[in-house]
Amino acid sequence: MENNILLQQIAFIKEIDKLKFIQRKTKLLNSDRCENDAEHSWHLAVMALVLAQHANQAIDVLKVVKMVLIHDIVEIDAGDVFLYDTQKNHSNTEEELQAAKRIFGLLPEEQATDFITVWEEFEAGITPEAQFARSMDRLEPLLQNFSNEGGTWKEFDVPYQKVYDKKKIIAKGSTTIWEYAEALLNESVEKGILKK
Amino acid sequence: MENNILLQQIAFIKEIDKLKFIQRKTKLLNSDRCENDAEHSWHLAVMALVLAQHANQAIDVLKVVKMVLIHDIVEIDAGDVFLYDTQKNHSNTEEELQAAKRIFGLLPEEQATDFITVWEEFEAGITPEAQFARSMDRLEPLLQNFSNEGGTWKEFDVPYQKVYDKKKIIAKGSTTIWEYAEALLNESVEKGILKK
Repeated sequence: MENNILLQQIAFIKEIDKLKFIQRKTKLLNSDRCENDAEHSWHLAVMALVLAQHANQAIDVLKVVKMVLIHDIVEIDAGDVFLYDTQKNHSNTEEELQAAKRIFGLLPEEQATDFITVWEEFEAGITPEAQFARSMDRLEPLLQNFSNEGGTWKEFDVPYQKVYDKKKIIAKGSTTIWEYAEALLNESVEKGILKK
Repeated sequence: MENNILLQQIAFIKEIDKLKFIQRKTKLLNSDRCENDAEHSWHLAVMALVLAQHANQAIDVLKVVKMVLIHDIVEIDAGDVFLYDTQKNHSNTEEELQAAKRIFGLLPEEQATDFITVWEEFEAGITPEAQFARSMDRLEPLLQNFSNEGGTWKEFDVPYQKVYDKKKIIAKGSTTIWEYAEALLNESVEKGILKK
């Protein structure tokens, strides 16, 4: 019984190795190499640990870290959707839900339910933990694009207002971090790497 | 003041992006691509969340996750040392301590001290959290080498006993996981991918 549980967990641990092959659009800092989802998730988790004190509301840090560590695992099946994609909705697609059920479903039943619930909470973006986790998810590519002379904003010709609208949900997680992010966006316009 | 703290934290967050460029010797599951330290750290963190119930002693899961997320950051300066390296000691080198002071030192003072302390606790391997975190660190490359027909064991001609001696510290973190790991090592010998 005990051993069966462990074997299910090991099957999940092996399966999620595939996240290291899922490429995002954004590039690493000062680099032209695309980031993958595992690297991205690691970075968000450390950011959550470091920045937790700036959350608008009291947060359960372990839950935030768990959210960001697992938030993109569904992309093993569903693929990465670019934040500014005009054809495909970024979140809550049926495809992602099926992926969550298949991949988290490799875990023992109780744990599978828990992971799916946490993933859904992240996607819904309503609880303080989800709002803070989502602000981490929006901040990291902002730092990357700023360091890469506009990065994907330039590459895909994304204008200021569109970036602003996507980034302003950072404020739900942390007004302090949003003030910093907003200043970065303004500086990007001044530097000519983001078009107003 | 508040803003100064955030700027120091952002400097740290940018600096650790470099971990995504630090290559390990071990390859991804069923792959010939080397894993990097960020991917590795992400995987250990999810493993810790999934496997926590098997710890020998009660553990603070958030602390374990924090340990594995930051345990390799020193390698940005000190480089990755192969577990079976015969020339260079794997841990607690002066070079790593200097790296910890420089990189974690980018953080606000109190946070820097906290991160260095947690990293040192991981390195010492004495507390239940450090022992469990280290068992995750030993388990992941075992799964990788097993999936890659021997992987680095074959590539660097590492014999069974040497692997066994390095892996048996898994038992300090979890006897249940060690039983599984030991069985994998025996199976590796039977399959001829690990030489006894």
